[in-house]
Amino acid sequence: MPVATPKKVKKDSNIRVDAQRKVSGKAKFIEDVEYKNILHGATIRSPVTHGRIRGFKNRDEIKNMPGVKAVITADEIPGDNIVPFVKEDYPCLAEKEVKFYGQAVALVAAETPEEAKAAAETAELIIDEYPGIYDSIESMTPDAVYVGGDDNVHSYFKIRKGNIDEGFKGADVIVERVYNSGHQVHCYLENQGMIAEPIQNGAISVKGSMQCPFYVHNALVKVLGFKYSKVRVVQADTGGGFGGKEDMPSIVAAHAALLANKTGMPVSLIYDREEDFHTMSKRHPSRTRIKYGATTEGKLVACEAEYIVNGGAFCTLSPIVAWRGIIHITGPYEIENIKADSYAMATNTVPCGAFRGFGQPQVNFANEILIDELAEKLNMDPVELRKKNLLKPGSKTATNQVVGSSCGMAETLDKTLDKIKFKEHKGNDKGPVKKGMGISTVFYGVGLGAEGKYFAKAGAQVHIKEDGTVFVAIGNVEMGQGAETVFNRICADTLGCSYDMVEILEPDTTRVPDSGPTVASRATLVGGNAVKDAALKVRDSLFKAAAQKMGVKPFDIKIKDGKYISDEGEIDYVDVVDLAYLSRERVAAQGWYKVENVSFDEKTGLGDAYPVYSYSTNACEVEVDTETGVVKVNRLVAAHDVGKTIHPPSAEGQIQGGAAQAIGYALYENLVLEEGKIVNPSLSGYTIPTTMDLCDVEPILVESAYDEGPFGAKGLGEPPMVGPAAAILNAIHDATGIWFRKIPCLPEDIVKELNKDINKEPKELK
Amino acid sequence: MPVATPKKVKKDSNIRVDAQRKVSGKAKFIEDVEYKNILHGATIRSPVTHGRIRGFKNRDEIKNMPGVKAVITADEIPGDNIVPFVKEDYPCLAEKEVKFYGQAVALVAAETPEEAKAAAETAELIIDEYPGIYDSIESMTPDAVYVGGDDNVHSYFKIRKGNIDEGFKGADVIVERVYNSGHQVHCYLENQGMIAEPIQNGAISVKGSMQCPFYVHNALVKVLGFKYSKVRVVQADTGGGFGGKEDMPSIVAAHAALLANKTGMPVSLIYDREEDFHTMSKRHPSRTRIKYGATTEGKLVACEAEYIVNGGAFCTLSPIVAWRGIIHITGPYEIENIKADSYAMATNTVPCGAFRGFGQPQVNFANEILIDELAEKLNMDPVELRKKNLLKPGSKTATNQVVGSSCGMAETLDKTLDKIKFKEHKGNDKGPVKKGMGISTVFYGVGLGAEGKYFAKAGAQVHIKEDGTVFVAIGNVEMGQGAETVFNRICADTLGCSYDMVEILEPDTTRVPDSGPTVASRATLVGGNAVKDAALKVRDSLFKAAAQKMGVKPFDIKIKDGKYISDEGEIDYVDVVDLAYLSRERVAAQGWYKVENVSFDEKTGLGDAYPVYSYSTNACEVEVDTETGVVKVNRLVAAHDVGKTIHPPSAEGQIQGGAAQAIGYALYENLVLEEGKIVNPSLSGYTIPTTMDLCDVEPILVESAYDEGPFGAKGLGEPPMVGPAAAILNAIHDATGIWFRKIPCLPEDIVKELNKDINKEPKELK
Repeated sequence: MPVATPKKVKKDSNIRVDAQRKVSGKAKFIEDVEYKNILHGATIRSPVTHGRIRGFKNRDEIKNMPGVKAVITADEIPGDNIVPFVKEDYPCLAEKEVKFYGQAVALVAAETPEEAKAAAETAELIIDEYPGIYDSIESMTPDAVYVGGDDNVHSYFKIRKGNIDEGFKGADVIVERVYNSGHQVHCYLENQGMIAEPIQNGAISVKGSMQCPFYVHNALVKVLGFKYSKVRVVQADTGGGFGGKEDMPSIVAAHAALLANKTGMPVSLIYDREEDFHTMSKRHPSRTRIKYGATTEGKLVACEAEYIVNGGAFCTLSPIVAWRGIIHITGPYEIENIKADSYAMATNTVPCGAFRGFGQPQVNFANEILIDELAEKLNMDPVELRKKNLLKPGSKTATNQVVGSSCGMAETLDKTLDKIKFKEHKGNDKGPVKKGMGISTVFYGVGLGAEGKYFAKAGAQVHIKEDGTVFVAIGNVEMGQGAETVFNRICADTLGCSYDMVEILEPDTTRVPDSGPTVASRATLVGGNAVKDAALKVRDSLFKAAAQKMGVKPFDIKIKDGKYISDEGEIDYVDVVDLAYLSRERVAAQGWYKVENVSFDEKTGLGDAYPVYSYSTNACEVEVDTETGVVKVNRLVAAHDVGKTIHPPSAEGQIQGGAAQAIGYALYENLVLEEGKIVNPSLSGYTIPTTMDLCDVEPILVESAYDEGPFGAKGLGEPPMVGPAAAILNAIHDATGIWFRKIPCLPEDIVKELNKDINKEPKELK
Repeated sequence: MPVATPKKVKKDSNIRVDAQRKVSGKAKFIEDVEYKNILHGATIRSPVTHGRIRGFKNRDEIKNMPGVKAVITADEIPGDNIVPFVKEDYPCLAEKEVKFYGQAVALVAAETPEEAKAAAETAELIIDEYPGIYDSIESMTPDAVYVGGDDNVHSYFKIRKGNIDEGFKGADVIVERVYNSGHQVHCYLENQGMIAEPIQNGAISVKGSMQCPFYVHNALVKVLGFKYSKVRVVQADTGGGFGGKEDMPSIVAAHAALLANKTGMPVSLIYDREEDFHTMSKRHPSRTRIKYGATTEGKLVACEAEYIVNGGAFCTLSPIVAWRGIIHITGPYEIENIKADSYAMATNTVPCGAFRGFGQPQVNFANEILIDELAEKLNMDPVELRKKNLLKPGSKTATNQVVGSSCGMAETLDKTLDKIKFKEHKGNDKGPVKKGMGISTVFYGVGLGAEGKYFAKAGAQVHIKEDGTVFVAIGNVEMGQGAETVFNRICADTLGCSYDMVEILEPDTTRVPDSGPTVASRATLVGGNAVKDAALKVRDSLFKAAAQKMGVKPFDIKIKDGKYISDEGEIDYVDVVDLAYLSRERVAAQGWYKVENVSFDEKTGLGDAYPVYSYSTNACEVEVDTETGVVKVNRLVAAHDVGKTIHPPSAEGQIQGGAAQAIGYALYENLVLEEGKIVNPSLSGYTIPTTMDLCDVEPILVESAYDEGPFGAKGLGEPPMVGPAAAILNAIHDATGIWFRKIPCLPEDIVKELNKDINKEPKELK
């Protein structure tokens, strides 16, 4: 039979499987995909933040411009004019009303990108301008202009646990503070982009930069009015997501698909940085009012909190952001009495959506500074205060969920403090540059949790070829975080083959069933379990073939160092594959995993919100130049309980990348809106830290295995972003004696505060 | 959750699922696939039929011609210089020796097809010419020039059953004749063509016109020296195969891939008709000497046969052709004593390979004329003679296999004779145009049989989307025969959904495991069973979801008219899917099927050669113009026992198309070779029947269900081609009184024979 000689392959190096193609420039991002005959799309957008659309003044003129092949407005959408997210409020193209600056109103396709852009820029919309509302607190006032949702509330959640009044009565000390955070921009290397193409049998295929192919698939079905089987979505190599490619690509894809459907040709729709800044989602700005009550011994007895985020013009994923925020509102502490409310408010600003951490960085920033402020009031070491209250196995979370055995919270704290030599640190009181050290602790619900239960599932396919190499198809994506490598390792270690024998195929919605989004640190746990399930099924065939050869039962076989071993002998993996092929065993299987046993009662806010939690501690040393206000993070140590590390370099990369993004969030990134319009929509106007600004983040991996996780793994994508901001601001306090309660904490803020005495109780809280 | 409203879809019409895209011109054949930057390949070929390669005179000149980007010779092949078929004798590029006119020696890639062609035409090879051998009988002589194989024998098989001498001793009448058949050209609408492209992670993807993506995958692994996981093969819409795209595409793909691998760019390699004629495989010319012995009562008691085919320069699939021929050497008759030998001989002609029928049309043509000749000698009605000997359940085939219960042989005969009014027909003795009627009967082993056991397996994937539409991935291909529609029906009928909800995905070797080739009428039985297996697995999830809703057990559910029904009520299919999604049941599965219980003993030629047999009868009425020799087939009735008809229009289309091809084989198609070189390599030089030459073939579908088949189906692709030639030549005898024993039976042959008395025993047999 014509099969190639199987070649034995040694266990290879631990390099990420996507590294070579990316560093060599061979990876094909959507802009690299070449077509001979393709049209280029552009979007005609609202020039105002709020208004009524009266008409399209020069549609015919646009239509007749050079190279223009199609102009599409809302009335021509064949399906529903809705891009479905959690709610169905976001029109694919604005029809009667525009609600934020840059909202898409019409589309154009032309032969060249320049012609498309020229047409879009020439377009004149007739719009009656309305007054806008841009601030979430203002949006809550009774006489606020109506923007959206229910009285401008996109979503509301609460937690009512224990007896809040009794709780505070039992407190010896109470502190209450307000913390504010600003927008954050994802600043993925690659802007949003899609190519849509009519394919066989009347279907449309879309390829592009995305985190969630199945969301895009759903959106196309809705907007095109097609059956699911007439849509295909394929992820191209994706240059960063961070949540910004969770929901937004559905819009870009829907626009590209409308143009392709109308013209019958492939259409490329790729944003430039300015367009991406103006129109794509951001991290929600927040205002968190939070109050802790504690005994003099340092036992936290009550927490009251109000968490308000600015959702922008449409709901998108605000409910999930607000929900994750409130679930984690008390930080990793056990508190019996809790009253918490979270609001996502509608305003006439760019819709805010998913961003690494998903509502948790905002609340962690608040409660982890507050715990330090409380320690100061209690005259207690903040580490000691934390240790008295930290979650441990058997503790109850804010939603009354009992913490399982996979809880490395204390270990992350101890290892972090040990590594950074927290006890030994001393401030530097001489000269204008002050040193300080700060910490923060984090617990993090892995995956989508009870409110995203419908999507808490994943499929995968594992398929062994004649020479023992393996194709793995998955529904979760690589976007720079290392998922391909994690799936590779899980598959290879399950089958007992070397890593370079496993090839991860590009995510394609026709290959595996809806596997939910690649967000919320869920890929390793949920997608990884699906890969493992598929690999185990195929392995049954290998066990059968090996057992038959050795004259034993399949369950007598064990795998060790790439060999299938029984008491009767051993066979190399590739030879076992050969035996399975000779006996024509089934060598492909579909794997499946669904998250069970999560619950949430919206009336009480109680329930088993997530299947499991990851835990982490961040500690950093900063230098504050009290003359210039410039803060430099000298060291940042971050220990994360990940359950089990599947691929150490990727895990360390996640920790380092998350910390870098958090340093930007805390100290650099300042999106400025004037009357609802972003005025610094560029990477020169909106500053993110460069490698020169960053220290070498020191990761520590803690492994408190989770029984349900693949090899014990939990999730790591988001947690590294959650904790550092508070640790940095606590360190700034340590250096300067000043509590900063707003991020970004810019040099000008520091200089300003150093020149007045603000180290006193705030007078009143709104 | 963002899912589209499921739309109820009525059972749609019975139109083939590939019809719309093909008749509308939207189907993308490989020449329609557009790339922005692609190179074009051309092949530098041997100008002689046999010779030693001494050098490449002007390689540097070629390399520097306009647009030329690469020239490749055998020494640059990174893997093995072998395109693997049954044996490993066919070099990807000739290195030292060329063995047939047009054999590939080197490759060139250039920026335009014209530049590539110009370069190839400019190439001058230095070759020492050897004497060639072109006839299979000559090739058997002891002093023949050596071409290949074992003493010029590519393959040899035999059957030794009973006692041949005793058998003939018991015969009252013996007839022995020699029958010859010529080459036949596949004449697929679309010539061979492939595009190879470097893709991510160092892999190469090849897309093109083909029947057997997994053969191509194997060939690329071999030639490129890549791991299986670094090759992807995708079938493009394919404009006809008929076996000509079983083995040959591996060569075209390997050449394209070598050029793509060397240049790092996509390379298109598409043949024109002349190149395709000269170099791609043909149906084997044959010489069958066959001798029957019978009692005066008409019982066949012995058969001796020698079946010799001209395999051409390389072995390719000759062994399988020769094997299928000998297995069916006695036709659908039970004979106790058999001695048969089959040889595939090497000659310096274009390699012959797979062609619809695979060695069976040649032997059927021989034994079905012989049975008429024997009837004449016995002075017996040929129908009666057949009926006395036909296989029925419990009979034993030539290889001693017991015929199972799925045997509609007699029913096909009765229905055919009835429809064509065989008993009532009368010759027309007035005037120069003579009428005649003839029949033939066929039994046909479905699938690859015992000699192709390694590939007797197939995988499939079924994957239900949110709205109930379904993606089906398969390893067997649509090439015009209707496979997509058959898989669609099998899946839809298993799940209880409407046909337009099922989408068949393009075959892709990364989607499903090696499913063997799409040949030998195996797609419905083997691929269909894999689809059914996958659909049944997914249906378990639907049963579970429906049962939970209705409060019954899954096995209490039945499907009827698109509803899932129990004693507790009924739920529409789409609503059941919705329930399954809500409970996050697994909605995708991998199906698998392998053919069991086939065997063949090469020493005796006995065994259970195939899992099951299809049966058919052809009857036709012809008019022979005795002045011009022109034969017109007025009617052709063909009844086929297919087990179960999955899609009647496709089944009828197979019967009609096969009969048309057989009419061409019998009366028109005459490939002329002079000194081993084809001299009529075009559709104007090589005549195939047009629609004007053909009658409206009348198909009859007989259903004798096969328990193992999907819904009882067996296979139908090849049988329609097998029988008509003999029926036509028997009819010509009926009209003219002359036994013609060679096909094509051309007007000039008929005129020549009518002018001499050949209706006597041949003098001697070689």
